[in-house]
Amino acid sequence: MTAPVNTIGLIAAFSTTTAFVPQLLRVWRLKSARDISLHMFLLFSFGEVMWLVYGLLIRSTPVILANIVTLALALAILALKLRYE
Amino acid sequence: MTAPVNTIGLIAAFSTTTAFVPQLLRVWRLKSARDISLHMFLLFSFGEVMWLVYGLLIRSTPVILANIVTLALALAILALKLRYE
Repeated sequence: MTAPVNTIGLIAAFSTTTAFVPQLLRVWRLKSARDISLHMFLLFSFGEVMWLVYGLLIRSTPVILANIVTLALALAILALKLRYE
Repeated sequence: MTAPVNTIGLIAAFSTTTAFVPQLLRVWRLKSARDISLHMFLLFSFGEVMWLVYGLLIRSTPVILANIVTLALALAILALKLRYE
């Protein structure tokens, strides 16, 4: 794989991971998560655990690291959703 | 790669993709997306476009298909967010 292709993959992983930061901050600031779907974050967190298991099985450090961060952010949003309900 | 490992990867991809369906339905039903972060869905959609480009470059059908579906769902949520603001 060429370097530019890997760079595009890294930009992709970085963007879809850090995208959850402004969502977490918004829920924290508004002290409300009414419009956030509980089912979305339950299913998404389950999927992230599966990605993490997959990353460990194929021994892919980028997959493991990206999904640890995304899982932590998704669980934090889920915790605030449950707290503000 | 063994079949069980691929199955875990497919369950992971299916879960993190379809997770956006209940979020889209919730925003549509509530006719509100106040708690949804515009920056999250802008950054996430950009990341999905990058994943799609990456999938095309590495010629990975699963990466292409999963990210077309996720991009469509994220753009639909983004459109409703802009509509209900």
